Amino acid sequence: MSKALSIFDTTLRDGTQGEGISLSADDKLKIAGKLDQLGVHYIEGGIPGSNSKDIEFFKRVKELKLQAKITAFGSTRRKDSLAEHDANLKRMIESGVPAATLVGKSWDFHVHTALQTTLEENLAMIYDSIAYLKRQGLEVIFDAEHFFDGYKNNPEYALSVMRKAEEAGADWLVMCDTNGGTMPHEVHDIVSVLAGTITGSQLGIHTHNDCELAVANSLSAVRAGATQIQGTMNGYGERCGNANLCSIIPNLQLKLGYQVLEPEQLKQLTNTARYISEIANVHMPVNQPYVGTAAFAHKGGIHVSAILRDSRTYEHIEPELVGNRQRVLVSELAGQSNIVSKAQEMGIDFDPENESTRAVISKIKELEHQGYQFEGADASLELLLRQASGELKELFVFESFKMLVEKTADRPVVSEAFVKLNIDGASVYTAAEGNGPVNALDNALRKALISYYPGLKDMHLSDYKVRVLDDKDATASKVRVLIESKDFTNSWNTVGVSSNVIEASWEALVDSIRYALLGQTKREDYEELPYAGTGLVNQ
Amino acid sequence: MSKALSIFDTTLRDGTQGEGISLSADDKLKIAGKLDQLGVHYIEGGIPGSNSKDIEFFKRVKELKLQAKITAFGSTRRKDSLAEHDANLKRMIESGVPAATLVGKSWDFHVHTALQTTLEENLAMIYDSIAYLKRQGLEVIFDAEHFFDGYKNNPEYALSVMRKAEEAGADWLVMCDTNGGTMPHEVHDIVSVLAGTITGSQLGIHTHNDCELAVANSLSAVRAGATQIQGTMNGYGERCGNANLCSIIPNLQLKLGYQVLEPEQLKQLTNTARYISEIANVHMPVNQPYVGTAAFAHKGGIHVSAILRDSRTYEHIEPELVGNRQRVLVSELAGQSNIVSKAQEMGIDFDPENESTRAVISKIKELEHQGYQFEGADASLELLLRQASGELKELFVFESFKMLVEKTADRPVVSEAFVKLNIDGASVYTAAEGNGPVNALDNALRKALISYYPGLKDMHLSDYKVRVLDDKDATASKVRVLIESKDFTNSWNTVGVSSNVIEASWEALVDSIRYALLGQTKREDYEELPYAGTGLVNQ
Repeated sequence: MSKALSIFDTTLRDGTQGEGISLSADDKLKIAGKLDQLGVHYIEGGIPGSNSKDIEFFKRVKELKLQAKITAFGSTRRKDSLAEHDANLKRMIESGVPAATLVGKSWDFHVHTALQTTLEENLAMIYDSIAYLKRQGLEVIFDAEHFFDGYKNNPEYALSVMRKAEEAGADWLVMCDTNGGTMPHEVHDIVSVLAGTITGSQLGIHTHNDCELAVANSLSAVRAGATQIQGTMNGYGERCGNANLCSIIPNLQLKLGYQVLEPEQLKQLTNTARYISEIANVHMPVNQPYVGTAAFAHKGGIHVSAILRDSRTYEHIEPELVGNRQRVLVSELAGQSNIVSKAQEMGIDFDPENESTRAVISKIKELEHQGYQFEGADASLELLLRQASGELKELFVFESFKMLVEKTADRPVVSEAFVKLNIDGASVYTAAEGNGPVNALDNALRKALISYYPGLKDMHLSDYKVRVLDDKDATASKVRVLIESKDFTNSWNTVGVSSNVIEASWEALVDSIRYALLGQTKREDYEELPYAGTGLVNQ
Repeated sequence: MSKALSIFDTTLRDGTQGEGISLSADDKLKIAGKLDQLGVHYIEGGIPGSNSKDIEFFKRVKELKLQAKITAFGSTRRKDSLAEHDANLKRMIESGVPAATLVGKSWDFHVHTALQTTLEENLAMIYDSIAYLKRQGLEVIFDAEHFFDGYKNNPEYALSVMRKAEEAGADWLVMCDTNGGTMPHEVHDIVSVLAGTITGSQLGIHTHNDCELAVANSLSAVRAGATQIQGTMNGYGERCGNANLCSIIPNLQLKLGYQVLEPEQLKQLTNTARYISEIANVHMPVNQPYVGTAAFAHKGGIHVSAILRDSRTYEHIEPELVGNRQRVLVSELAGQSNIVSKAQEMGIDFDPENESTRAVISKIKELEHQGYQFEGADASLELLLRQASGELKELFVFESFKMLVEKTADRPVVSEAFVKLNIDGASVYTAAEGNGPVNALDNALRKALISYYPGLKDMHLSDYKVRVLDDKDATASKVRVLIESKDFTNSWNTVGVSSNVIEASWEALVDSIRYALLGQTKREDYEELPYAGTGLVNQ
């Protein structure tokens, strides 16, 4: 169990083959820096010369002076030519990386169908390319494409490919399940065969998730002798994605006893995964293993009362080991124990036995029945609980809003909002435009309040989601709006529900501002501001 | 490999423990009907008596006369009491189901910590509850909670729990990896031990995805002797979800050679998975194995030219086996052939070589770049293509719309829309209210047109979806609206995109009406209508 394992990250190369994933050179550099902090051993940066982004990446990544080895990806030389004349191999060398990932064919069917050459020429292409890269002083990682399909179709040929690569001096022979169709017991058997044959190179594994088995297949290969694991963060990659390093790393380290990263680095896993999903602009599924926001979230009443006694009852690891945390979800399935523990988490004094507690619990259930969902709207829930506990001071009173959208054939659409609030006894009436109705409302609402609470200028809306709750009635059905807001240090989520999308958005907007003001009242007293109460606030 | 396997679906029970998943009784009945068509063998409907939804479900599901066995879920009797007096067991029996899923403890730690009773009393609770349900004529599926953690901590006790359940007459002993922390090789070893011990009951497996191994663990258990597989559609469930039946079923049938469903039923897999994600109102990840829209999508370059030669080069199965299809993500070449084949499908004469064809193809690409998606909006695509082919006659011209939403503290929100169209040279100006801004616009638009085209009264909007396209700019980001419309015989889908949700909705609404009018012009000539052209139309 103490054999050293290498983590090979290909988020920047194979990961970008995923639908909807596109990374600029800047994005790639940021991600490389973050992966290096996490402690992965190899970072595959891209395909030199395939596009200007990758050229820029390879040029600038050297300045970062990372610990991880940067590798460049490319194919074996073209058929019937010399490796020394191959433009592609030349670009890999010129990129200045210490290690090259060279992909070659190991499935006879592919040699015939895709390469359209002979089995012998393919072996020569592999040998020549590896030998040439080795002569240039590079570490060579040979990715045997479709190795498992190849082995199943023609084991002798697949093994001869690997022996040829070993003979040429490849440092690593990586078995790729390119189409993602191999079962874990097959991986185990086939890797075991190769491990019994190869002595001069180390073995690696590269799997895809088409059968939802990429993580299992990676572990199978490690147990059978592979020591390099190729994958991507969050499992990004073509079709169903590559093997997800965010699951593989903690499985290896916390379950199988390998020391892959330093424990302090492992604690960066959740943070790294979320950072990369932000940069890639891909929504992370809440239920993503280990790093998702729901990975250690508990909804059932019985489960919640058990984890309050001992978290091991329903958690397979301590979430802190991977930098995640436990959450208790509030939902109609849950008993009042969920709500009470949530209140405690928020530091609200909340006696489950008293009358107002029971009233707020039945109010929350009623709101959920109407379509509110507090699982994703902690701030709205906190406002309800603080209100019930009597400690919430409302800093403004709603009087009215009007929202107008107008479009004529010859001009762009215009959105305007008019908001009237009562702030500390004074009626404040503001108007604002926006590039959409919700943006206009947001602008008008902040305009009304910002003179009283200048701290509001530090917050902004960072996410806006709309969901139609019941499709049956089409445009007459209810919608739920979820808003995420941020300031320099925090983010919070609020919810609104209505059959009217504008009203639902307004509710969530107002809760966002009310929540922001919870902090504000503690920091400053608006009466001390020089311009409070002057005509300046009526804009 | 020919041993019969039973698929046990718990989407309606364990699946609803997932964050963001909430199903009404109607939703549950629809899903049950769909699962039955797919051919699963058991459908766990819920917890009788836990809430009014589940009571209603068990009452109404009998009327559906499904092939699948419906099961009700509940715990063993309370400690230190009689099974015959247990309100929970009574409700399971009263629900009228043919089979009961009874959950009990098999981890000594949980018996002490969560149940707070003795190991002996827990065995008695299991024995009494099973024996009582059996005496009532029910098939009993015993779910041994935390069986793998229990076995690892105290193998003798975990096995004694199973032997006691067998002795009490349980039909099935189901090993649950409740916390989802067990590795596939451990599952294989532990199931093998149990399979060597139990002779009077069949074995089942129930896994969770906390290590991204739920599918692999289910397969491991089947290979070691389990014949019932519990899981959920799309892997819904608490924390990281339950084992995903959408991956397990095709893995068993297409990879391991088991006959789980009829081949025709397996072809319903994608459709069923997507239907359930719609009902559950949960976005299906594009890269979901087997059933996701990207599961067989190819993003260009070398892979695309290889799959055009032979799809086996980069596809592990034929997508049609599970009702999915190959997609080539938009690239110069693929885009054009897709669009031409789409036009032919619509019966539009479309020469790929002429100028206007090339113009509309680049327009469609530009629109897709802006966020339009025509895959779910065939009617909008058809309008674009008919327009390009010169055969579309526009029956009205847009002049303007205004939309007003107003709310004051003491009154409900009001939505009004004002629409001005030019219909056959006459300016028609209408106003309408609605219970939301889109409903008001829809009402005003139809009001303007219905006197000219009375056939429009037969159509209505049947579905309305809003999706935020770019989370980064929050309320200033773009939204895409998809509308489904229906008349007596057809349904059609349209799309609108804008940074303004009202404008996006308006676009999709207008396309819906324009598409409806394609048929109308063929059926009747509005000039023959007695009230056309009179003042009546200015409402």
